[in-house]
Amino acid sequence: MMTADRKTLEEKLKELLGDGRVSLNETVRALHGRDESYHAERLPDLVVFPETAQEVSEIVLLAKETGIPVIPFGLGSSLEGHVIPYSGGITIDFSLMNQVLEVRESDFLVRVQPGVTRSQLNKELKKYGLFFSVDPGADATLGGMAATNASGTTSVKYGVMRDQVRDLEVVLADGSIIHTGSLAAKSASGLHLNGLFVGSEGTLGCFTELTLRVYGISEETAAARASFPTVDAAVEAVVSILQAGIPIARVELVDEPSMEQVNRHSGTGYPVRPTLFLEFHGNSAGLRQDIGFCEEIVKEHGCERIDFETETEGRNVLWEARHNLAYAFIHGHPGRKMMVTDVCVPISELAGAVHHAREAVDRLGLIGGITGHVGDGNFHIILMIDLNNPEEVGKADQLNEAIVSYALDRSGTCTGEHGVGIGKQKYQEQEHGPAIHAMRAIKQALDPENIMNPGKVIDFKQEGSEK
Amino acid sequence: MMTADRKTLEEKLKELLGDGRVSLNETVRALHGRDESYHAERLPDLVVFPETAQEVSEIVLLAKETGIPVIPFGLGSSLEGHVIPYSGGITIDFSLMNQVLEVRESDFLVRVQPGVTRSQLNKELKKYGLFFSVDPGADATLGGMAATNASGTTSVKYGVMRDQVRDLEVVLADGSIIHTGSLAAKSASGLHLNGLFVGSEGTLGCFTELTLRVYGISEETAAARASFPTVDAAVEAVVSILQAGIPIARVELVDEPSMEQVNRHSGTGYPVRPTLFLEFHGNSAGLRQDIGFCEEIVKEHGCERIDFETETEGRNVLWEARHNLAYAFIHGHPGRKMMVTDVCVPISELAGAVHHAREAVDRLGLIGGITGHVGDGNFHIILMIDLNNPEEVGKADQLNEAIVSYALDRSGTCTGEHGVGIGKQKYQEQEHGPAIHAMRAIKQALDPENIMNPGKVIDFKQEGSEK
Repeated sequence: MMTADRKTLEEKLKELLGDGRVSLNETVRALHGRDESYHAERLPDLVVFPETAQEVSEIVLLAKETGIPVIPFGLGSSLEGHVIPYSGGITIDFSLMNQVLEVRESDFLVRVQPGVTRSQLNKELKKYGLFFSVDPGADATLGGMAATNASGTTSVKYGVMRDQVRDLEVVLADGSIIHTGSLAAKSASGLHLNGLFVGSEGTLGCFTELTLRVYGISEETAAARASFPTVDAAVEAVVSILQAGIPIARVELVDEPSMEQVNRHSGTGYPVRPTLFLEFHGNSAGLRQDIGFCEEIVKEHGCERIDFETETEGRNVLWEARHNLAYAFIHGHPGRKMMVTDVCVPISELAGAVHHAREAVDRLGLIGGITGHVGDGNFHIILMIDLNNPEEVGKADQLNEAIVSYALDRSGTCTGEHGVGIGKQKYQEQEHGPAIHAMRAIKQALDPENIMNPGKVIDFKQEGSEK
Repeated sequence: MMTADRKTLEEKLKELLGDGRVSLNETVRALHGRDESYHAERLPDLVVFPETAQEVSEIVLLAKETGIPVIPFGLGSSLEGHVIPYSGGITIDFSLMNQVLEVRESDFLVRVQPGVTRSQLNKELKKYGLFFSVDPGADATLGGMAATNASGTTSVKYGVMRDQVRDLEVVLADGSIIHTGSLAAKSASGLHLNGLFVGSEGTLGCFTELTLRVYGISEETAAARASFPTVDAAVEAVVSILQAGIPIARVELVDEPSMEQVNRHSGTGYPVRPTLFLEFHGNSAGLRQDIGFCEEIVKEHGCERIDFETETEGRNVLWEARHNLAYAFIHGHPGRKMMVTDVCVPISELAGAVHHAREAVDRLGLIGGITGHVGDGNFHIILMIDLNNPEEVGKADQLNEAIVSYALDRSGTCTGEHGVGIGKQKYQEQEHGPAIHAMRAIKQALDPENIMNPGKVIDFKQEGSEK
């Protein structure tokens, strides 16, 4: 952006928001020029801190007038460069819109502003005996989680972010403020915008309010760790548990190299074996029967040892250890950056996919552990890369491509939960085929000037033009 | 359509499909000129019977060339005029595309053609110990159920049609054949087209293949009938059951006038009282605990009598009776047509909404019963109308408007599961506000010539034009 333009825009934004909520400060901009990934940084021209949907609408209209991008920003915990403003522009930081607006206890609904974090919401909900189910590990904002269709450990039972969104208030590229849903548990009215906007990564609009589904905390919860001789055996046990129809609440795979990192980082003494971390929610009688059945199944698959945690404290230690795995890898490998693969395959293809992934990592001589939300067929290779070593970076790229190709060849997806951002763009045509033209047509219809987080999800250049 | 045009189109279609699969026969056209609703009939110009997606694509291209509409048709069991070709055109009947193509047992997925019916699919799935959860009552086709986002009695536990669709093969208005999803249980790749196309009522494209989620038949099933002194007491019991976190599989309300019809039509001797029909799925121990808890709750709400059906036969009688309720009303009132309201409200507003509905029916002196999928906040008034009595028709319209206004004032929806068709169009702006512009923009982007089932869902005239 030209300096003169920036000056005018800055003045107009300050008129709108006051001096204190418009920043050109280098440090503030730097904080908004990266996420938690290995993707290169790029600073926004300005950062603004709106407090209302109306302000967001006016910011978008100013951006539209000036023809520069707007990039919605939660906490920057995304993993594929979603919030990095590679075409410059205005970053809209939602940290001042962080109120839990309403808990509708008997409707199992909560209305929140986009800057509310997952843990903040759960703290509030606990007072009502309720919880919000989606748990991607990071304490992300709910606006960001909706924008990327986050999921994580609990989606095998409760579903992904898209399944929890009952309504969104969205500021569109023309400044209009719309609602994508209602408070009804189901609807067959109009075209379904909720699902389309969830996962749109800021490319269709900015979320200014979310109405989300919440759940009652179950009567009983039990967690377990089960160690297996091989990753294959662990994965096959998961498939059998699902086929038995046991409504498991979480089932996470952690391979041997990852278990080492877990023990080192969290001070636990868990067996260094391919391990399933499991959780069950239900009534006391049903839970006992589920657990008994599950124990039989894992033993049939060669489970060497299963340890239960029925007390809250033990469960918390177990899940903390699992959740801190990414940070364990980061702290264990100073100077290296994390690169994470994220494919999801049909569950019948999971054992083969994990096997293929392990072989590929070993063959390329990379440092990496495999972990995953295996109940959904979604797994990650956490790679620790020396970005100053071009050969290693090349190998990591090669690995990612091999993993993605394997998944796409089996009707899977290149990203189960991290989203596209810029990192998964190159696979969009391969995955979606001619459907990509429909996606581009929708983007162009809703954002004809391409100002909403441009260059993310898919290459939204106008079809047939070089714009 | 001009006679000469029709002649040319007919010839081209016969060239494509052969004489036997293109019909101008009056009787065949009449069968495709109505649905199960009270909406006025209108015959299509031609009816075609394709066997492949490629043929559907070529039919759409011929329609595009000629500039005439295409209307996808399953079995005509819709309730808001969805398949009635008010602008004429080609009706695409999917009855020859009725194969279950693949059962992916360990992925809990099934791939079907759009003309497969719900009961046909369940018959096939039973061999694998699996079932398809969505049950709208009518034995509709799966293509039609996806087009209208059908739901019904089981969605309180398993979700609506949209929740079951993993992938659709769709022929778009430009003849291209796309896939809207993949076989992965979750994905954060691309824009989410699955959810957008489900419920689009043929206005965005024709479905030529569906990949659907299926479930394992649960270890145990139990059903119950619970009679209450008032509708309010029954509804309040449902709210309490949900708040207790009991994972109920079905919970249906049937009011007194409807219970009379049930007994008369099905030869049952159930108490003529406001009644809840309940079903529980689970493991044996969990089920016993759920049922015990449920029994306590309904008694706290004044339940006069609860009868359990644990045997398959008794359960079948119970659900047959419930499902045949609409037909019971029809057979009980010869010469009258059925008109059904279909609002859905937040569960906290349900008791008030049902109360308001009963009062309005009585005040207007109409014949009608209230029934509903009350676990979702969705209820119907089944009205039996004498279409030759303009005053009565006027009163029915007045009632429908009052019911819809009540729901929309409480952030509900004008249609929980029947869809918009033409019957609910007049409420679209009131329900969706400025979001309707986004819906129109999407329709225009994907079907610029407005040939896909035009005039349905919302008035898709181009914005700002009189076209």
